[in-house]
Amino acid sequence: MIVIVLSETCTPAQRRQVLSAVQFAGSGLRVHTPHLVSLTGDRDRVAAVLDGLPQVTEVTSLSAGYPRAARLAGRAATTPVWVSDVEIGGPGFTVIAGPCSVENRHQMLTTAREVHACGAHAIRAGAFKPRTSPYAFHGLGDAGLGLLAEARERTGLPLVTEVVDVRDMERVAQAVDMVQIGARNMQNYALLREAGRLRMPVLLKRGLAATLDEWLLAAEYVLDGGNEQVVLCERGIRTFETGYRFTLDLAAVVVLKERTHLPVIVDPSHAAGTRGRVLPLALAAAAVGADGIIVEAHHDPSAALCDAAQALPTSDLAELMRRLLPAAQSAGRTLERAPGRRALTSVSGG
Amino acid sequence: MIVIVLSETCTPAQRRQVLSAVQFAGSGLRVHTPHLVSLTGDRDRVAAVLDGLPQVTEVTSLSAGYPRAARLAGRAATTPVWVSDVEIGGPGFTVIAGPCSVENRHQMLTTAREVHACGAHAIRAGAFKPRTSPYAFHGLGDAGLGLLAEARERTGLPLVTEVVDVRDMERVAQAVDMVQIGARNMQNYALLREAGRLRMPVLLKRGLAATLDEWLLAAEYVLDGGNEQVVLCERGIRTFETGYRFTLDLAAVVVLKERTHLPVIVDPSHAAGTRGRVLPLALAAAAVGADGIIVEAHHDPSAALCDAAQALPTSDLAELMRRLLPAAQSAGRTLERAPGRRALTSVSGG
Amino acid sequence: MIVIVLSETCTPAQRRQVLSAVQFAGSGLRVHTPHLVSLTGDRDRVAAVLDGLPQVTEVTSLSAGYPRAARLAGRAATTPVWVSDVEIGGPGFTVIAGPCSVENRHQMLTTAREVHACGAHAIRAGAFKPRTSPYAFHGLGDAGLGLLAEARERTGLPLVTEVVDVRDMERVAQAVDMVQIGARNMQNYALLREAGRLRMPVLLKRGLAATLDEWLLAAEYVLDGGNEQVVLCERGIRTFETGYRFTLDLAAVVVLKERTHLPVIVDPSHAAGTRGRVLPLALAAAAVGADGIIVEAHHDPSAALCDAAQALPTSDLAELMRRLLPAAQSAGRTLERAPGRRALTSVSGG
Amino acid sequence: MIVIVLSETCTPAQRRQVLSAVQFAGSGLRVHTPHLVSLTGDRDRVAAVLDGLPQVTEVTSLSAGYPRAARLAGRAATTPVWVSDVEIGGPGFTVIAGPCSVENRHQMLTTAREVHACGAHAIRAGAFKPRTSPYAFHGLGDAGLGLLAEARERTGLPLVTEVVDVRDMERVAQAVDMVQIGARNMQNYALLREAGRLRMPVLLKRGLAATLDEWLLAAEYVLDGGNEQVVLCERGIRTFETGYRFTLDLAAVVVLKERTHLPVIVDPSHAAGTRGRVLPLALAAAAVGADGIIVEAHHDPSAALCDAAQALPTSDLAELMRRLLPAAQSAGRTLERAPGRRALTSVSGG
Repeated sequence: MIVIVLSETCTPAQRRQVLSAVQFAGSGLRVHTPHLVSLTGDRDRVAAVLDGLPQVTEVTSLSAGYPRAARLAGRAATTPVWVSDVEIGGPGFTVIAGPCSVENRHQMLTTAREVHACGAHAIRAGAFKPRTSPYAFHGLGDAGLGLLAEARERTGLPLVTEVVDVRDMERVAQAVDMVQIGARNMQNYALLREAGRLRMPVLLKRGLAATLDEWLLAAEYVLDGGNEQVVLCERGIRTFETGYRFTLDLAAVVVLKERTHLPVIVDPSHAAGTRGRVLPLALAAAAVGADGIIVEAHHDPSAALCDAAQALPTSDLAELMRRLLPAAQSAGRTLERAPGRRALTSVSGG
Repeated sequence: MIVIVLSETCTPAQRRQVLSAVQFAGSGLRVHTPHLVSLTGDRDRVAAVLDGLPQVTEVTSLSAGYPRAARLAGRAATTPVWVSDVEIGGPGFTVIAGPCSVENRHQMLTTAREVHACGAHAIRAGAFKPRTSPYAFHGLGDAGLGLLAEARERTGLPLVTEVVDVRDMERVAQAVDMVQIGARNMQNYALLREAGRLRMPVLLKRGLAATLDEWLLAAEYVLDGGNEQVVLCERGIRTFETGYRFTLDLAAVVVLKERTHLPVIVDPSHAAGTRGRVLPLALAAAAVGADGIIVEAHHDPSAALCDAAQALPTSDLAELMRRLLPAAQSAGRTLERAPGRRALTSVSGG
Repeated sequence: MIVIVLSETCTPAQRRQVLSAVQFAGSGLRVHTPHLVSLTGDRDRVAAVLDGLPQVTEVTSLSAGYPRAARLAGRAATTPVWVSDVEIGGPGFTVIAGPCSVENRHQMLTTAREVHACGAHAIRAGAFKPRTSPYAFHGLGDAGLGLLAEARERTGLPLVTEVVDVRDMERVAQAVDMVQIGARNMQNYALLREAGRLRMPVLLKRGLAATLDEWLLAAEYVLDGGNEQVVLCERGIRTFETGYRFTLDLAAVVVLKERTHLPVIVDPSHAAGTRGRVLPLALAAAAVGADGIIVEAHHDPSAALCDAAQALPTSDLAELMRRLLPAAQSAGRTLERAPGRRALTSVSGG
Repeated sequence: MIVIVLSETCTPAQRRQVLSAVQFAGSGLRVHTPHLVSLTGDRDRVAAVLDGLPQVTEVTSLSAGYPRAARLAGRAATTPVWVSDVEIGGPGFTVIAGPCSVENRHQMLTTAREVHACGAHAIRAGAFKPRTSPYAFHGLGDAGLGLLAEARERTGLPLVTEVVDVRDMERVAQAVDMVQIGARNMQNYALLREAGRLRMPVLLKRGLAATLDEWLLAAEYVLDGGNEQVVLCERGIRTFETGYRFTLDLAAVVVLKERTHLPVIVDPSHAAGTRGRVLPLALAAAAVGADGIIVEAHHDPSAALCDAAQALPTSDLAELMRRLLPAAQSAGRTLERAPGRRALTSVSGG
């Protein structure tokens, strides 16, 4: 795939000039954004017909087919995504914490209050839970969304929650600040397309056997819909090792930083399987250069309805925040956050 | 999980007697079918309170939580599924063949005619294609369903096609004889729940990193909705080996035959990656004891819009059928089919 | 790597002419056999300088660096290896059977007699056992070799046994007809080099995470020593699936047949983990086109000192042989063996 | 396996009393060290017969069979290993650096000098190189050992080098301060047994598909020979992901710290595949709680004979050391080293 990057100052007429110039130089011509065009063909031939046009910033051959997710020369290494007033992918390291699922009002509000008190930047909690067994607890559903809204109102922290069904997308998007697409749905393209119609942040977890390129192509589905606010989340892949739940792939963070401009965070909880392992993996995520973490925390893990073994008690979150600081610093990051802007979010695209 | 199997002659009153007897012997009591009850608790305790009740055929402890998919002692090893008048899981080995996707009328009707002429038992073809890239060909959609219907009318062979979006389920189910849920959607629980509302065959492919138990739990989602017509399809798992597309896991067929009464077929095409490998893998599938295969075939593979490299030319299908015979015989199967019954199918459950 | 194949009738002078012609056309010139030369460089340039030389049969570019193991155009698809008078890789499908380890005289001789009576072609049994734990049974060692010799004398069947230490190589090679290098030692290059100094058959098992190319490069170590009698043995790879011991990779057989002229057999026992799974996997191995199988069999598995769960009782071997026949036929093979030749074997190279 | 830990003050007579007490309480009684005894049987029964004996510190049931490698209650979390005067597993984080292989005198001495100047604690370099291809560079062999000795003399830093053949073990052990057993030989039990006869540090790399328990059992082979100086090295496992060479498994470090008292270091170079990835992975290794790292460094990577792409230029090592400091601190470690003791090492056991 040949990608043509146009300058920020490129006019519509100049863009038409480019499209006209390359129309016979390849096939599958596609305008992704006003400044990003791709086609299939020979890079040198495409570059030749564009030679001398000042509005052309770059002509690149991309082996993987995700022009919108790709990190391109001459553009920012990371494009920050704002979840309400919390920036992911900027100079600060972001900590999202909360319970696996919304269980009841007391649990949700208590945990949210303690997450806020520890200095975490956002709250996670599931109202719709994908579970391996049809007979397991599947979340409170819409009732959970209501409790989430109450938690946000009390703490002021933005919310992340998962959506598992295209028919729930609009309701979930209205209720929270960032919509999560979980590992099992990473290649549920109908769901990705719906997320692409939103104009708000999407947290896209890696499928448990997805290659990095497949994951970026899944992100491309969202981006291709015009939603540019995608954050990736490494959460462990499936390997032969049974000593923990999943193999946390921290090298993936490093390689993603080479390939994409999308922010990357890490979920150390699902890979760990037990809470004693969450802290060291969180530190490693900070040191390896991730833009943040999302951890499971519960005010009383012994009573949690799901993932009890791996949930941190909120009483340990302050210690986690304290120890994250030097680890994040080793990667050139801070934990303090500049006074944020309130992001403009609208549920559906224009 | 403790599973209680009731006799075929068990009356409603006798079932109530059983439920009453075990209500304090465990928790999570659930009636799956008129003859299958499960709860969580201690098997010996449950067995004790049921001691002497003639309507109780079996009390079993099941480590994996899929009572409806499980192969239980005293029941048939395999429960056949009828796709129109084609039986999967009976004495005959079933061959389903057809193109990756419906491309146009000529391609679909030509391929269908040749698939029929070779003696294959059913036709596969995709109208809605899940593709790794948002920029790839995604199928003809509803127009493809129309061409499929025409192919069925001309050949009399039943049709299998994939559904990728819950919102398409009813339309797809109306159009074909068996609905396929693909590997990427094996844990798309919303889709599985919709498939559970059907009363027609569902072909459930294995996720590329799904364990056998996760796969059976996915099947349990469909069964739990009351749809008992589920066929499993092994199609290769993801491993480190890059010499082919996926690692075809034929031992999975053997282990599934120990664990479940659902029929199991094999897709040798996606794992192979190139057509020269399809024949030996198909033979191996027959010899290992699978109930059938589903292969990609095209009247002119060089012109195929997707998976061209792995599609068999239909001119090779007759050879495949001929060579399958001794392989199927080594596993105690035939290729000839008894005159079928026309299965009663209705799109949605009562 | 560029490979030059010389004609069978090529004289030493003609070979020198070739070497002289290509000496400046590339680097790393190496004479593997009198008829096989390789170098690194540009294929077209090498072909140009050899243009018109009648002794040059073929000039090929080989992406993987195993010229001696590679299947080259214009040469036999499979080069048979003779283990005493048993051919592996010819028209017949070969069955090697025997206990995991030599345990005592009664066990070894009883099992050997029954293996022979069933019509199997060779005997396997370990005298030196690599075991994951230092505290497990490690075989009888040299005493086991003596019992193996007695088993051969009584049955007339050739013997296969494993060697795990370079210092044992010569003794083991003297005692048996084929030396096995196990999965754990597939990249023990010191051991492979010693095996390369032999002039007798070597059975090289695949490492449990070895790619096909790494495996062929391991074989190349043996071939590079001048020992051309290498048989490959697929025995299952390590994946995430825990429903059986290893994932038997039968597609590997198909791909190996594309890449190498070395015979390929399959060990269904270690992958299966339980004996009920050995028969279907053995049938699949025959149908997929393997040149034979090596199975664990014991006259009394309940008393076996290792791998008891997966050993077939010798009383089941006759049934296995009977059912293998149609499976092998589906792949164009027989089970009957032509009257063999006594292979000339010598322990060490010239 | 039942493990009995005896007190530090236990006398030989008291030990005999223990052995006598348990001799009929289980089977496979084995004395591993004067203070560690194991047998197979029922823990409660063993504990009962030992009840009241003051010399018994602990009676534990160990699911994995590595009593000497296991972290046992009441004993140190990590047993430091001294490589000459460098402690691995103490309060300091250890950095071992050097070229993949000894190539020539200039390269070795230049690189060693620069490694020393940056403050690294030990030098690594290979004289005997295991290579996937028989036609690749396999190291300088004994000549390389000589150059290593010269590098040590000039810098005063201890040396780590790999051994690949049992017949080289004694010569290599004489020449260096720590003997490395590489990933490919992790289950080369003959080599492990020889390493167990040494009385000097052994660096045992993880096999690329070895489970944590298999790895600890490999360590147990060395420990069982009476050599207690074993350090483990995580170097990446093989998975489906092809975006880098191996998947660095940092969670393994966390889980090993639960299971074993042996120090654990990390090799970020082989997993990374390219040098730009080595720094972030090294930081992550420090933050996750490893006891050190071993990195490939070369004074002129562009000229390196092997692993050129992943070797850090020694000019980057100072930066690595500087940035490791906060990462190590986040895990409670320092980089400064207390004035060491000169470890007493002897090549072979008593």
